Amino acid sequence: MGILLDDGLVMASDSRTNAGVDHISAFPKMRIWEKPGERLIVLLSAGNLAITQAVAAELEDRIRLSDGKKRRKGSTMETVPGMTAAARLVGEAVRRVHAHDAEALEQHGADFNATFILGGQIKGGPMRLFLIYSAGNYIEAGPLTPFFQIGETKYGKPILDRVITPETPLPEAVKCALVSFDSTMRSNLSVGMPLDVLVAKRDAMATHHRRVIAEDDAYMMDLRAEWGEGVRALFGRLVDPELEG
Amino acid sequence: MGILLDDGLVMASDSRTNAGVDHISAFPKMRIWEKPGERLIVLLSAGNLAITQAVAAELEDRIRLSDGKKRRKGSTMETVPGMTAAARLVGEAVRRVHAHDAEALEQHGADFNATFILGGQIKGGPMRLFLIYSAGNYIEAGPLTPFFQIGETKYGKPILDRVITPETPLPEAVKCALVSFDSTMRSNLSVGMPLDVLVAKRDAMATHHRRVIAEDDAYMMDLRAEWGEGVRALFGRLVDPELEG
Repeated sequence: MGILLDDGLVMASDSRTNAGVDHISAFPKMRIWEKPGERLIVLLSAGNLAITQAVAAELEDRIRLSDGKKRRKGSTMETVPGMTAAARLVGEAVRRVHAHDAEALEQHGADFNATFILGGQIKGGPMRLFLIYSAGNYIEAGPLTPFFQIGETKYGKPILDRVITPETPLPEAVKCALVSFDSTMRSNLSVGMPLDVLVAKRDAMATHHRRVIAEDDAYMMDLRAEWGEGVRALFGRLVDPELEG
Repeated sequence: MGILLDDGLVMASDSRTNAGVDHISAFPKMRIWEKPGERLIVLLSAGNLAITQAVAAELEDRIRLSDGKKRRKGSTMETVPGMTAAARLVGEAVRRVHAHDAEALEQHGADFNATFILGGQIKGGPMRLFLIYSAGNYIEAGPLTPFFQIGETKYGKPILDRVITPETPLPEAVKCALVSFDSTMRSNLSVGMPLDVLVAKRDAMATHHRRVIAEDDAYMMDLRAEWGEGVRALFGRLVDPELEG
């Protein structure tokens, strides 16, 4: 998920990938292009791992190729002048992968399924957050919709809906992201630890805080236990309905 | 949703149907065949309204036809000797509707989408709860899986996962069902009031409590407000993470 706040940006992802319950493995779903003080771009991915890795490879290849041949046309994630142009770069990469792979996938009955959250800030421009679809088009977060989720979104959405506003402070937003992931991980085995969390303050164009949260993370363990006990206690305090016959 | 407990059965449904956001209407999704002391069978439906209504019509027609011609073969929801046979009757009705409609639906790019929860008890047999799929086959709830949901299941599942066990008392299970619906209704506009709740005690073979909960239901309004405030207060009490740079 990505959360765009007055104070900055919170990006969080899990790292579990599954191709059936007997083929579960861990892959990072967060990619970062950063030059502190100049640019911070963070890309999260969900969907078919082969597609999302191919999209990331497209973006990286572009950087490598442009390093070799200085005169190569077009910008890369390291040179793109603004966040909207960065979202377009990702969208174009998705479309190139689609052109290359979609027909073969269809022959095997597989959908072309990949979505991305792109957040960050480039010097001279505002901090922005985008959701990029499989078709390569995108939407942008705003004050009325300050967060995006991709992948398994539903179990963890109610707490985000209840808590997150643009005024939410960064630590509280991280806490909310973790509680949201807790609900999702309890209900869907294909979402799992470690979690990857990045926090960036507005106008710093740099990572403020980065944390990989593993199963034995003390803060996360306490949070999960207190939230679970608290929810059950709160539920217990609510008045039962009268079931008159 | 349907919840099978040591004390009895809780069945609850919303009543909103949508065919696009400009075509939302209310239809009951709960059907009851009851002869107090002898049988109580409750059927909930989700999915394509035309299909679920056709399945219900199949079941009702069977009763009407058997009233007219006494010698008609096969049992109906009013005569079937046990709950498993009742689940089979529903599954057969789904298959007859499939045989009749699936091809035409496919020509219009629509899936044959209809699922059912069947709960109840018939004298001489145990109280049982089934989930019946579009294919007409079914699974049964047990102590490890005491509840089923159909339709928009995910938003409201975490609280059921946290609270419901076979030992949960009936009033608490109704409360949990309502909190679960609250989360779903907040996140998905296609789920809406009024809610339809039925409670049956084990071995009574009769409805113990039935309640239609509309927007202005005082208990539900209090429950939603207290739960919402309680969740936010609980969240606020959790320790924020330290975001050291």
